[in-house]
Amino acid sequence: MFDARVISESSKLVRSSQALIHCITNYVTANDCANILLAFGGSPVMADAPEEVVDITSISSGLCINIGTLNKTTVEASLIAGRHANELGIPVTLDPVGVGASVFRTETALLLLKEIKFSAIRGNMSEMTALIHGVGRTNGVDVAPDDCITESNWRERGELLKKFARTIGTVAVASGPVDVITDGNSIFGVHNGTVRATQITGCGCMLTSVVCLWIAACRKLMSSIGDLESSISAVTTFGICSEVAENNTVDKQRGNGTFRCELIDAASILTSGDLEKLARVESV
Amino acid sequence: MFDARVISESSKLVRSSQALIHCITNYVTANDCANILLAFGGSPVMADAPEEVVDITSISSGLCINIGTLNKTTVEASLIAGRHANELGIPVTLDPVGVGASVFRTETALLLLKEIKFSAIRGNMSEMTALIHGVGRTNGVDVAPDDCITESNWRERGELLKKFARTIGTVAVASGPVDVITDGNSIFGVHNGTVRATQITGCGCMLTSVVCLWIAACRKLMSSIGDLESSISAVTTFGICSEVAENNTVDKQRGNGTFRCELIDAASILTSGDLEKLARVESV
Amino acid sequence: MFDARVISESSKLVRSSQALIHCITNYVTANDCANILLAFGGSPVMADAPEEVVDITSISSGLCINIGTLNKTTVEASLIAGRHANELGIPVTLDPVGVGASVFRTETALLLLKEIKFSAIRGNMSEMTALIHGVGRTNGVDVAPDDCITESNWRERGELLKKFARTIGTVAVASGPVDVITDGNSIFGVHNGTVRATQITGCGCMLTSVVCLWIAACRKLMSSIGDLESSISAVTTFGICSEVAENNTVDKQRGNGTFRCELIDAASILTSGDLEKLARVESV
Repeated sequence: MFDARVISESSKLVRSSQALIHCITNYVTANDCANILLAFGGSPVMADAPEEVVDITSISSGLCINIGTLNKTTVEASLIAGRHANELGIPVTLDPVGVGASVFRTETALLLLKEIKFSAIRGNMSEMTALIHGVGRTNGVDVAPDDCITESNWRERGELLKKFARTIGTVAVASGPVDVITDGNSIFGVHNGTVRATQITGCGCMLTSVVCLWIAACRKLMSSIGDLESSISAVTTFGICSEVAENNTVDKQRGNGTFRCELIDAASILTSGDLEKLARVESV
Repeated sequence: MFDARVISESSKLVRSSQALIHCITNYVTANDCANILLAFGGSPVMADAPEEVVDITSISSGLCINIGTLNKTTVEASLIAGRHANELGIPVTLDPVGVGASVFRTETALLLLKEIKFSAIRGNMSEMTALIHGVGRTNGVDVAPDDCITESNWRERGELLKKFARTIGTVAVASGPVDVITDGNSIFGVHNGTVRATQITGCGCMLTSVVCLWIAACRKLMSSIGDLESSISAVTTFGICSEVAENNTVDKQRGNGTFRCELIDAASILTSGDLEKLARVESV
Repeated sequence: MFDARVISESSKLVRSSQALIHCITNYVTANDCANILLAFGGSPVMADAPEEVVDITSISSGLCINIGTLNKTTVEASLIAGRHANELGIPVTLDPVGVGASVFRTETALLLLKEIKFSAIRGNMSEMTALIHGVGRTNGVDVAPDDCITESNWRERGELLKKFARTIGTVAVASGPVDVITDGNSIFGVHNGTVRATQITGCGCMLTSVVCLWIAACRKLMSSIGDLESSISAVTTFGICSEVAENNTVDKQRGNGTFRCELIDAASILTSGDLEKLARVESV
């Protein structure tokens, strides 16, 4: 059982935290990630030069590594920053974008897993499966149809993720029609969200950065909310924002451009009361 | 004569294709390109590390090379990916952003032309002229006033483009108040579009990626629609979307920010019936 | 005393200038900078390869250097372009994003100051302080609370900036609830703007590029408006646009996504008459 009051409580903490989140991320959705972090009350800083990532990580409350447009230099920067964050006890999250789609992505992701302890890892189920098996069948950066998490298979997929989370010692988050979240002990399914989130770029990247923000803010403010609860709260909150955005988009008979705008709107104006009311979290 | 039903027919194919489009592109408009591809039914993947472009191209249905913020590494990646796409028979499109504005851009564009066979090349008339003559007078990334394609000069400009298209063996697309499209045999003028598209960043880049998507999707789905017809359909569809966006922006008495949002909206909600009705394609 | 008619007069010049602004900037907000430059009547070109920046700067009316996501290569490109702009008498502006947050940023900013003469430098007060003292306490890319410029301290902060501006020989612009602008002789406070501008990414970067555009356009069109007046006009105009955007956002009961869209709208549709009426510029 997950108490929905944790979501509203943590969202209030996050909103007031101004937690600095160091993002080593891709150039496609960096702007979206910065804006969603700001909308929820965080403070993003994007920096990926190996020369400076130690300094930037040191002043941050969280580090979010995203391999969306990785290259040799940003991989080096990610390793340096991740190790340093581990030494300082700063939480690190990973978005293994497109892992499985190229040998370079797969090897990079596995190297990052080996060298860095992640507080949370979030991907779609194809990406998480590629991480787990060390080899992939990812369809670019989108989930392969066979891998998609549904209402009928999420518990079973959760078991696979649970083993991985336990082995690695992380919170694993797999996104889909149902989002599955596990720390290696318990498994949760979040039934919030909307299919339109897969039809604009950046929702996965944004969500991973929001998970990082939630974990970082709850730790920064010495809350008793642990990384698992933070992750569930972040995923649920983001899912609710996308539902609100979808409803407004449909009401106005508009499309994907409006949805993107409404998503950032929702993140900046949703109240903790709304969140508690709309959350649909289930435990196995 | 161009049968407008090809536009509606191809748009339906594209909408259902989820064709994976590998973009090696600039960081200014990568987000816009990803969102327009998704809005029309494609699946974008941005990847420009030389280490992985062979893998990414191999799983893609199309490759779109854009030199907007080129550098040594992305030029190398473009050459590798383009040659590999040619070997595999995957269509490649080129957006020679700002060619003529620097020696580096001009030499890179000419090198790409020499090494890679492009299914389509799209630029403004200054860029296309710089490509044709191997030297340029480009005004940054915008068209020089003298080069602008108008209702009165499009047929004549089309003849210049036709020779180029025939020599290179490509579909050449020059954007302007009239868009000219030729495969080296026939010349077509598309009278759709709006001037506001030149007042937000990314419309050129988006259009080239959409041309790539149309060609890739029609080939992927084994349609009889050839690259020329795909290109005409893509250009016309994009032009109609910008007209719809412009009308909505003016109706609401809003400006460029709203237009950008409305453009993505239009791409995601326009029906094939609308397209057929609004298309204004003329042949020489 | 500052005559508000300078703002409306300069805005008309800018609107018709199509001044080419060469931006060496970060990948997070490059799209926002391009769109705001276009919305005000400029023509942006983003190019950061050392191989081409001399060519690009040469055809530009202004160069805007922003170290938001600096790396070894873009620092090299900035030095080459900045020196070349100085030789040609092309105005250069600097946005020292996050200076003080890492040794690499601080050293880079100081090196740029040493090697290049800037027509204007704009940052938040933490960044400006880090520049002045050569060492920082920047809170990421956001201002540290103690540094924030307020209605009660702006004149005093202006004195510090004035000394810096005089020593360096530049126009210094420090953003905050009051924006302080000085050329080393006079000090001006701009009371336009809104706090929401700090809650979306890119407003600082956009403002610096807009200052560059104003200076470049007024020079290009041989106006008698000097760099100080151009800077005041740019800052005031941007502040008014953000106020208009904020009012519209609140009227619609929307959030940060809408604000971002409304900001670009305002930049593209505000008239010079509106500007004159709403400007709130004070001199010390």
